[in-house]
Amino acid sequence: MDSNRAFAKTVKGKVYLVGAGPGDPDLLTVKAQRLISSADVILYDDLVPAAILALAASRAETLSVGKRFGAKGATQLEINARMIESAHRGLAVVRLKGGDPGIFGRLAEEIDALEAAGVPFEIVPGITAGIAAAASLGVSLTDRRKATRVVVVTNHQAAGDQGAGKTDWRGLIREDSTLVIYMPGHDFAALRRDLLEAGCPADMSAAIVSRASAPEQRYLFTTACELDKLPRLDSPAVLLIGRALDGARRRSSAEASLALDEAELLLSSL
Amino acid sequence: MDSNRAFAKTVKGKVYLVGAGPGDPDLLTVKAQRLISSADVILYDDLVPAAILALAASRAETLSVGKRFGAKGATQLEINARMIESAHRGLAVVRLKGGDPGIFGRLAEEIDALEAAGVPFEIVPGITAGIAAAASLGVSLTDRRKATRVVVVTNHQAAGDQGAGKTDWRGLIREDSTLVIYMPGHDFAALRRDLLEAGCPADMSAAIVSRASAPEQRYLFTTACELDKLPRLDSPAVLLIGRALDGARRRSSAEASLALDEAELLLSSL
Repeated sequence: MDSNRAFAKTVKGKVYLVGAGPGDPDLLTVKAQRLISSADVILYDDLVPAAILALAASRAETLSVGKRFGAKGATQLEINARMIESAHRGLAVVRLKGGDPGIFGRLAEEIDALEAAGVPFEIVPGITAGIAAAASLGVSLTDRRKATRVVVVTNHQAAGDQGAGKTDWRGLIREDSTLVIYMPGHDFAALRRDLLEAGCPADMSAAIVSRASAPEQRYLFTTACELDKLPRLDSPAVLLIGRALDGARRRSSAEASLALDEAELLLSSL
Repeated sequence: MDSNRAFAKTVKGKVYLVGAGPGDPDLLTVKAQRLISSADVILYDDLVPAAILALAASRAETLSVGKRFGAKGATQLEINARMIESAHRGLAVVRLKGGDPGIFGRLAEEIDALEAAGVPFEIVPGITAGIAAAASLGVSLTDRRKATRVVVVTNHQAAGDQGAGKTDWRGLIREDSTLVIYMPGHDFAALRRDLLEAGCPADMSAAIVSRASAPEQRYLFTTACELDKLPRLDSPAVLLIGRALDGARRRSSAEASLALDEAELLLSSL
């Protein structure tokens, strides 16, 4: 008989790998909200806002395990050990990750560790940043008239990983694709060059959304050839590129000119 | 001054384009749940289950506008007209779509219609089927050790659309990509041929998930070269393909052999 399985039956606790969504507590799933408020232990990433952590029961142990902006956080091995040890104590553990845990959330390594330790676990999906960003811009990521696929990538693969290096943009740039770039970084001049070299049309619509759905959300529409003019916005940010953004970009610039007209009207009336 | 904008100010109602998630009411967002229970009018697709519609207020007008399995439903123009007319009556309208509205939900056409009519609208994102399917399989769609991008496509583009025809799989099949195929259809022999011809390794892990997160959910793990042996499962279904599924496929077959061992043990003890 499989030893992991036999072992699993002896572990009374359980680990819930939960997506916290993009930031707005209103975009938690009903299930995530319930699990957060009933968990014994919550191990959370830096991206999870205070308003979501405030849902935890007062008796819950809550522990930040994120490492952001180079600050020292718990290592992956420490996070794994803490989840496993808490489950062995019979506790309900919520491992809370920003967005959806399965999209650039290092979920696979935690699954492997839980599986190897025979700890029961369950994944609770969340609204991922790219989907939240599109919704807040009034953009549909697909459009059967012009965008029939969505490609989700990061700008650079994580440093130190196997196969680390620059993203290979060949084959990603197509008229009929919407590109969703997580962790776009701040070197938009280099990104512009890479995209144009890979065949991205200069007039392709683009938008950057910083802190999608949070009160601090900011966004800007642009085009591929003007990417280098984007200002540095707060992390986390998501960059969307594709014809699916055309309508929203047009609306946005119409509103901007309108605001300008109104300002001029106001000035001329003074 | 922009006439749409001036017009918008005279429309008292609002249209919420809301993702109902994959089926489990627990996977609604908190915001979607609240909007559904407070809406005056709910226009819903066929994929939205009764358990979610049951959240509507008793005074709400609820109307199915879906067309599934070729049955006659409301046309897109009729849906648009109904949304606009209800907003003009000052009502809070929820246009409820399965999954996330921006992923293969024909959202773009509804945004264009609302925009043209000067009706205020807001998109509320939902858990899309591919993300729910991965979560229920215990799979992370990305894995920094081997899957650094996610590609979301349909098997065929919608019939009658511009550019209709077979999906172009070139460039989609890569060792480092997880492919999420919505509406995979039932002709898995043709799909197997297309994928292998596009360079998909024969041993690439795959899984089909039918009715992800619903009580009727079913799933099966396989490989690219055995896709043609998949049975016909209920719609909606999602097919996942990629190395990110390797671990879950191994666990699944280990559990299947274990179940077989236990059955043999039981038989031999009789």
